[in-house]
Amino acid sequence: MIRSEETICAPATGAGGAISIIRVSGQDALNIVSKFFFPLDKTVNLIVSKGFTIVFGEVRSEGEVIDEVLVSIFRSPNSYTGENSVEISCHASPYIVGKILELLTQNGALLALPGEFTQRAFMNGRLDLSQAEAVADVIASSSRLAHRVSINQMRGGFSAEIARLRSELLNFASLIELELDFGEEDVEFADRKQLKEIIIRVKGLADNLSESFSLGNAVRNGIPVVIVGKPNSGKSTLLNALLMEDKAIVSDIPGTTRDTIEDTIVIEGLEFRFIDTAGLRDTTDVIESLGIKKTFEKISQASVVLLIDEVSDTPEQINLRIKSVKDKIKESDKKLIILVNKADTSDAAKQQQLSARIDLTPDEDLLFISAKEKTGLEDLRKKLIETVVKEKISSDSVIVTNIRHYEALRNVSLSLERVLEGLENKIPDDLIATDIRQAIHYLGEITGVITSDEILGNIFKNFCIGK
Amino acid sequence: MIRSEETICAPATGAGGAISIIRVSGQDALNIVSKFFFPLDKTVNLIVSKGFTIVFGEVRSEGEVIDEVLVSIFRSPNSYTGENSVEISCHASPYIVGKILELLTQNGALLALPGEFTQRAFMNGRLDLSQAEAVADVIASSSRLAHRVSINQMRGGFSAEIARLRSELLNFASLIELELDFGEEDVEFADRKQLKEIIIRVKGLADNLSESFSLGNAVRNGIPVVIVGKPNSGKSTLLNALLMEDKAIVSDIPGTTRDTIEDTIVIEGLEFRFIDTAGLRDTTDVIESLGIKKTFEKISQASVVLLIDEVSDTPEQINLRIKSVKDKIKESDKKLIILVNKADTSDAAKQQQLSARIDLTPDEDLLFISAKEKTGLEDLRKKLIETVVKEKISSDSVIVTNIRHYEALRNVSLSLERVLEGLENKIPDDLIATDIRQAIHYLGEITGVITSDEILGNIFKNFCIGK
Repeated sequence: MIRSEETICAPATGAGGAISIIRVSGQDALNIVSKFFFPLDKTVNLIVSKGFTIVFGEVRSEGEVIDEVLVSIFRSPNSYTGENSVEISCHASPYIVGKILELLTQNGALLALPGEFTQRAFMNGRLDLSQAEAVADVIASSSRLAHRVSINQMRGGFSAEIARLRSELLNFASLIELELDFGEEDVEFADRKQLKEIIIRVKGLADNLSESFSLGNAVRNGIPVVIVGKPNSGKSTLLNALLMEDKAIVSDIPGTTRDTIEDTIVIEGLEFRFIDTAGLRDTTDVIESLGIKKTFEKISQASVVLLIDEVSDTPEQINLRIKSVKDKIKESDKKLIILVNKADTSDAAKQQQLSARIDLTPDEDLLFISAKEKTGLEDLRKKLIETVVKEKISSDSVIVTNIRHYEALRNVSLSLERVLEGLENKIPDDLIATDIRQAIHYLGEITGVITSDEILGNIFKNFCIGK
Repeated sequence: MIRSEETICAPATGAGGAISIIRVSGQDALNIVSKFFFPLDKTVNLIVSKGFTIVFGEVRSEGEVIDEVLVSIFRSPNSYTGENSVEISCHASPYIVGKILELLTQNGALLALPGEFTQRAFMNGRLDLSQAEAVADVIASSSRLAHRVSINQMRGGFSAEIARLRSELLNFASLIELELDFGEEDVEFADRKQLKEIIIRVKGLADNLSESFSLGNAVRNGIPVVIVGKPNSGKSTLLNALLMEDKAIVSDIPGTTRDTIEDTIVIEGLEFRFIDTAGLRDTTDVIESLGIKKTFEKISQASVVLLIDEVSDTPEQINLRIKSVKDKIKESDKKLIILVNKADTSDAAKQQQLSARIDLTPDEDLLFISAKEKTGLEDLRKKLIETVVKEKISSDSVIVTNIRHYEALRNVSLSLERVLEGLENKIPDDLIATDIRQAIHYLGEITGVITSDEILGNIFKNFCIGK
């Protein structure tokens, strides 16, 4: 299943743009490329060229020039994969990219599977498994915090944490196993009191990490926010007002488009995904109009519900809407924020009067805003951030974003729970040792010290081609 | 309008994929990048690093690591633009790309305008204008012939041809002007007979080039083919059968999709763009059903009309359809090919009988095919190719694909026509000299020996960003 002898190739850049990069990696990379690449400087021999150098020349097929390209050379072990590698930088024409891939495969390279370059980096010890997984997250990251968490993981921050937990357990496991080796002699190399302290501490750390998953998941995938309100209550004006400062430089990237996805807004580096609803019909029978199945579904996907009312609504209308939304979200931990829009058309007295008559629990927030005049938006942003970020994510904080890691950490915690119970109940050492080994095993799965072809296959198949 | 002192930057790769390249060019390129890029090897100083080398390191912003990147260094004049240049190869995350562009602009680089890198290559004499224009065509090329013609132009094939014509004229122009300098003395440095021969020859070459434009245009933009027929006559089965061998390696490129454009099929390296029509209603009143405005428009855009009938149709039905299509395309040079589909459901005798009763001019072709059984498709491909390629396009043949060049060549021809008339009618030398100068001027416009900011602006604004 896992190939390592073969030389693999794939385009590494997206379609469009001015240039494309084709990656080649494997022991024959330089040989294969030199079959169809001819340096402009005829004294240059690609096969003996130094790593970290670039050669300009022509790609030719049957005597015909296909393109003028730059070839970057990387020599084992100093490359992404750890193997000899070549990156061909050509003009971004579909014909040229296709033709170069054809030349590569004709000369013995295989088309790479998704993630196969990163898989090789893992197999060759350039990255551990959690770092390799982070590579895909780094590429997908589109907000500051998602980026920060994934790049910290890619650079080994998470791995170091796991390795630390693992080595503490390993230490004790070997002492206990030493005791078992001595069998009948009843020696105690591992101090039980100290062991218990360490297990409690390690379990606490594992629990902290797995608890960070809900934050990590929000950071990685964005926080789904649904906006509910009757038509013309200002939903799209609000979205545009919030989006305003998000018209990032990124939109200059050829081919970038946000049209196909829901609107996303980055606030303090955190991505909020706004889910559009059809809007409530302009009726006081809110329950009925909320009954539309689609709106239900969208509310169920969201972590935060923004209910937009208007300052001209009566308290009864607003309370009715609040009640109907709350009926839908009860027993969930969804956060409800009530916005009263078009506040610019009223005065403070009127607003005070209105808010006094709205039924709220202490958990709920009522904000007067004007999407048109862009007032109250700062408060809204603050409330949105507060709903999610319970703690600051610093550049070196370790947060679990990957469900595979989360599940492994939960298993670690359960195993250690059994160890603690065992210590409490004085169960035999060999059973305790088994549970400690189990915890060590689960920690090893995260970084890939322990792994299987199946786990690897599952992880890398979700990567893009060329990575 | 044209900037040259500033250092410019832009993403050069499309969105998506595993890696992105950001290009930086200008005298401060290395300085600017070294403000936020930190080589892993601390002994490396980017500012004095050699060209054609690669440096691995970190991009940092306010102490935080943004990405681990490869930086490729090119030193003036040995770079694409001729200036100091840097290419930053980073992970293809929108956040990272945006952040690096932000760091570049914060440190003094400007976001590049479309085509600005290539414009600089032109301004610095790395490419002439027709070569620079070909760069965009090379990137857009998606068929073998479009690629061959554009890469030949990019590599200077067309420029060499134009330069040759121009120098022949320049030679004679100076002799004639020398005569004018001698004024009254009535010397004749330029042999009139020889001049006439040369003008005829140069005009002939210019005419040949401008005549190649219709082929060049077809090669560059693809040949529009419209398929007309009643529903269920097998249009989409036919398209799929033709597309079969076109499932190119290119479809593995991340983000590539042909869904948004019309179906394109490459036959013998030439692209045919198939335009879908709603289909004729299943009625013998073909004229009425063809009357749908949209179908009209689509026929008017096409160079080739494929009319699909079925072998079970009566000759009268087929003749009626042929007549109604011919009414629409008369007085155009559109080519009509009549296909009788589902030929597998009939025998040779029946087909002979049918074809004997179809009204055809010698120009028109009738083909029996079975889209389902994939028979007759080879003949169809041959007919499609025959409709367009009147001559072989070899790898060094010079073909005009650009309407600006076509117009310039037409003007060259008109000027030379006046020269010939002048020689015939013995008009004064100074008028002849003016016309020769004019022809020389138009030739110079093609390669950019003579140019203006306006022409440059028009040319480069159609380029993509990053090129």
